[in-house]
Amino acid sequence: MPDGSDCRSSLEAAARGTGGEIMEMKILSRRDGRITREILIQAPDEDSEKKTVEAIRNLKNCHILELIDCTFHLHRGGKIEITSKITLRDRNDLAMAYTPGVARICMAIQDDIERAGDLTIKKNAVAIVTDGTAVLGLGDIGPTAALPVMEGKAVLFKTFGGIDAFPICLDTRDPEEIISAVKWMAPSFGGINLEDISAPRCFEIEQRLKRELDIPVFHDDQHGTAVVILAALVNALKLVNKRLEEILVVVNGLGAAGTASIFLLRAAGVRRIIGCDRSGILYRGRQENMNPVKADLALITNPGKRRGTLYDALRGADVFIGLSRPGLLQGKDIAVMARDPIVFAMANPIPEIMPEEAEGYAALVATGRSDYANQVNNVLCFPGIFRGALDCHARDINEAMLLAAVHAIASSVEADKLNRDRIIPSIFDPAVQPRVAEAVKEAARESGVARSHSAYSSPIDP
Amino acid sequence: MPDGSDCRSSLEAAARGTGGEIMEMKILSRRDGRITREILIQAPDEDSEKKTVEAIRNLKNCHILELIDCTFHLHRGGKIEITSKITLRDRNDLAMAYTPGVARICMAIQDDIERAGDLTIKKNAVAIVTDGTAVLGLGDIGPTAALPVMEGKAVLFKTFGGIDAFPICLDTRDPEEIISAVKWMAPSFGGINLEDISAPRCFEIEQRLKRELDIPVFHDDQHGTAVVILAALVNALKLVNKRLEEILVVVNGLGAAGTASIFLLRAAGVRRIIGCDRSGILYRGRQENMNPVKADLALITNPGKRRGTLYDALRGADVFIGLSRPGLLQGKDIAVMARDPIVFAMANPIPEIMPEEAEGYAALVATGRSDYANQVNNVLCFPGIFRGALDCHARDINEAMLLAAVHAIASSVEADKLNRDRIIPSIFDPAVQPRVAEAVKEAARESGVARSHSAYSSPIDP
Repeated sequence: MPDGSDCRSSLEAAARGTGGEIMEMKILSRRDGRITREILIQAPDEDSEKKTVEAIRNLKNCHILELIDCTFHLHRGGKIEITSKITLRDRNDLAMAYTPGVARICMAIQDDIERAGDLTIKKNAVAIVTDGTAVLGLGDIGPTAALPVMEGKAVLFKTFGGIDAFPICLDTRDPEEIISAVKWMAPSFGGINLEDISAPRCFEIEQRLKRELDIPVFHDDQHGTAVVILAALVNALKLVNKRLEEILVVVNGLGAAGTASIFLLRAAGVRRIIGCDRSGILYRGRQENMNPVKADLALITNPGKRRGTLYDALRGADVFIGLSRPGLLQGKDIAVMARDPIVFAMANPIPEIMPEEAEGYAALVATGRSDYANQVNNVLCFPGIFRGALDCHARDINEAMLLAAVHAIASSVEADKLNRDRIIPSIFDPAVQPRVAEAVKEAARESGVARSHSAYSSPIDP
Repeated sequence: MPDGSDCRSSLEAAARGTGGEIMEMKILSRRDGRITREILIQAPDEDSEKKTVEAIRNLKNCHILELIDCTFHLHRGGKIEITSKITLRDRNDLAMAYTPGVARICMAIQDDIERAGDLTIKKNAVAIVTDGTAVLGLGDIGPTAALPVMEGKAVLFKTFGGIDAFPICLDTRDPEEIISAVKWMAPSFGGINLEDISAPRCFEIEQRLKRELDIPVFHDDQHGTAVVILAALVNALKLVNKRLEEILVVVNGLGAAGTASIFLLRAAGVRRIIGCDRSGILYRGRQENMNPVKADLALITNPGKRRGTLYDALRGADVFIGLSRPGLLQGKDIAVMARDPIVFAMANPIPEIMPEEAEGYAALVATGRSDYANQVNNVLCFPGIFRGALDCHARDINEAMLLAAVHAIASSVEADKLNRDRIIPSIFDPAVQPRVAEAVKEAARESGVARSHSAYSSPIDP
C-alpha cells in the first residue's frame, strides 16, 4: 500500500474487527513505489491472531512477506547463556585458568572443601530442579516441555538476585530417583530450588533433601508462595485492625502452596486455620482423599472440629486463601465471612473469584494476576531469600529465615502508602530484594545455619 | 622505599635470589614521603613464592601491605556466569518471558518435543560431567575439588566453540549411578561431555550413555585425545614419507586415551598396533592386569604376537605414542625403532622423554606441553566437534565425525608451513574450530545421525 495513513487505517480496521491491535509500524524500505513495513500487532489469543493475519492478508495491495511471533522469537535459542568471566588471549591466560594453574586451586579445595565456597561457581550457583509434573497452570507436561519455564526462572534469579541459576529438568518422576539425582549433582551448587514438582511427592523430596544435604534446599511453590501470602496478609490485617493471633483463616487447596501456607501461618502465630480441598473441610479422622501430609495437617488445623464444604468453612472466617480452582466463590459466599473479609484468590490464571465480583463484599482482594492490584508473586521473595542464604553460606533455609523474609517484604510498603490496593510492594521496586536478603542473612546467623564466613585467604599470609 | 630505581633494583635482587621475577611494577599513591606500589612477581613454584615474599619482607624500608595470589584471584567466585539474554524492564517483558507467555512455548514443545532444539537452551547446552576420579595429573580428588577444572573446561567450550557448557560434578563413583544421573538430567542438554572419569569405568559409562540417549555423548579424555594425536600423526607421516597402512605403532598406556587412540588408529587404516601397559606388551591370552576392554584390544592388536616389555615392542616400530608415565624412554630406546621414528610423549606434565633427550634419535617429537613445539591439546578439537554436532542436532558423535575432525585439524596446517616443529595448528588459530565444526556436521549428515534441521516455524504460516 503506497500511502501511509491509508495503510495504517486499513490495517487498523482489519485488526480491530478480529481483536488485534496495531502497536507499532515502521518503514523498512521504499522501492519502485512499494513500501515494506514492519508492523507490531498484539492479539489477545491465538484464534484472534490467526484471524487478524487473515484479515490483513485479504487487504487489497497488501502482501505479507514474513510473520514473526514475538513470544516465540524471544524464547528462540533459550533465554540464558553461560558466559566466561575471564578472557583467554594466549597460553599464559590458559596456564592460569586451566592446566597447570588450576591444579593449585583443586588442591586447595581438596585440603579444605569449604574453600569451594570461595574459589568456584558454587558460591553463587543454584540448580532449578523439576520433573515437569506440575508446571504453572499447565500441569504434568514432562521435563523437556518444562524447560522454557525453568529458563525463565533462571532469568528471574539473575535479574532480581544476581544468582547463577541453571535449569535441571529431570526425566524421572520417582521421588527416590529425584532425591538421588539432586544429591549426586550437589557438589556443583550452593543451593537447590525445587520447582513445579507435584504434591504430595514434593513434600517428601524436599524434606529428605533438606535433611541429607548441607546446602539450602527450597521448594518455591511451597515456601515462596507462603512467604508472599503471609507478607500480604500481615499488611492486610493492619488495614482491617485485626491480629494474626485472633483471626480464623480458611485455606482452600492442600497442595504444595496451601500446605506450606498453613505451616507458615502457624509459625507466624495464627491459631485458627481450616483447610479445605475437593473433599471439603479437612478434619482429624477424615478418610476420603487423604495422604500423610494431610493427616499431619488435620492434627494442627480445624480446632473447632468443623465439617462440611468450603462454604461451611467460610462462615465467620476473617481470611480466605484460595490456591485451588477458578470461579469457586461468589459474592454471597464472602457475605457469610466475618466483618471486613480478606480474600486472596490465587488460582492462576483465573482466580477463585474475580476482584470485580468480590467488590462490595471483601474488604480487600489479592490475586496472582499482574493486571489487578495486590499481585502475590513469588518473584518478590525467592531471589532475595537465596541471595541472603548464599551470602552467608547457609546450610539450610529454615522457618526463621522465611519469617524474616515475610517481614522484610511487608515492611517494604511504607505505612503512609499502605492501602487496600497496595498491600504488597511491586516486584520492580529495587529496594525489596536487598532488604529480603539482608533479613534472611541475619536470621540465618541468629538461627545458627550460616557457616562462619570462610574469608578468602592466600596460601601465603602477609 | 622512596626512590624508584633503587626500589626496583633491591626488589629485583631479592626476587632473583629466590627464583622469582618482577613482571610489572606500578605506583598506586605517594603520600608523606611514602610510595605505595603494586608489584607483579612470577615465581616458578610455591616454595620459591614463599621465599621471594620473605626476601622482600626483609628489605629495609619495605612493608608488604597486601599479598594477592594471581591464580587464586582469577578463580575466586568461579570462572563462569549464567547470564540472561533478555531484559525484564516491566510487566510486559515478564508476561512474554515468563507467565503467561511462556506457556505457549511449553505447549509447542509438548506437541513436538523436537522443538526444544530451537526454543530452549538445549540447542546449545552441554553438560560437563565428572565424578572427579581422574582429574588432570591429580588423580582421584573427588567431585568438589574437580569443579575448578570443569569450570575451566566450560570457559574453553565458550571461548573456542561458543557453547554453553555447565559443570556437573557428581558425588558418586558407581557407574550405574553416574549413568542414571546423566540420563535423568539429559532433557536440559543438547550434548554430554564426560570428563576425567577413571578407566575402565569410563568405557562402560560412555558406551551405555551413547546407546541409551538420543543426544551426543563424548568422553573427551578418550576421543578428544585420540583425534588430536591422529591429526598430528597424519601430518608427521607426510614429513617422513610413510603411510598409515604400513606403519607399526606402539601405544604405551591403556587407559582412556590409549584405548581410544588404538580404536581410532585402526579406523583410520593402521593395521599394526602394539599396546603396552605396566605389565608390558598386551597379547591375546594374557592373564595379568586385564579388564574386559583390554581383552577386546588384545583381539585387534599385536598381529605379530609379540611378548615382552615396552622396549621389546619398540624394536622396528615407526611410531611411539606414550600416554603413560614420565621418563620411561631414553635415546637408546628410540634408536631400536625403524627409520625416522615418530615420538609422541604425552605424559603430563613430564613426558615419557623430554624433547631435548630425544633429539638426534627421533625424527620428530610431540608432547602435551605448551612450552615445546607440537603441543597435542584436546582444545583443538572438542569445541569444534560439539559445535558441529549441536548445529545439526546430531543424535551421536560417531567414528565418521571423529575422523572428519582429524582431517580438518591436520589440513589446518598448510603444506608449505608443515615442518617437524609444526605438525599441529595452534589452538589460537581462529580458523581451526570452524573448519572442524563444518567437517563434523558434514560427516554427521552423511552418516545419518544429523536430525533433519527442524527449522523454526511460527504456529501461523505466512
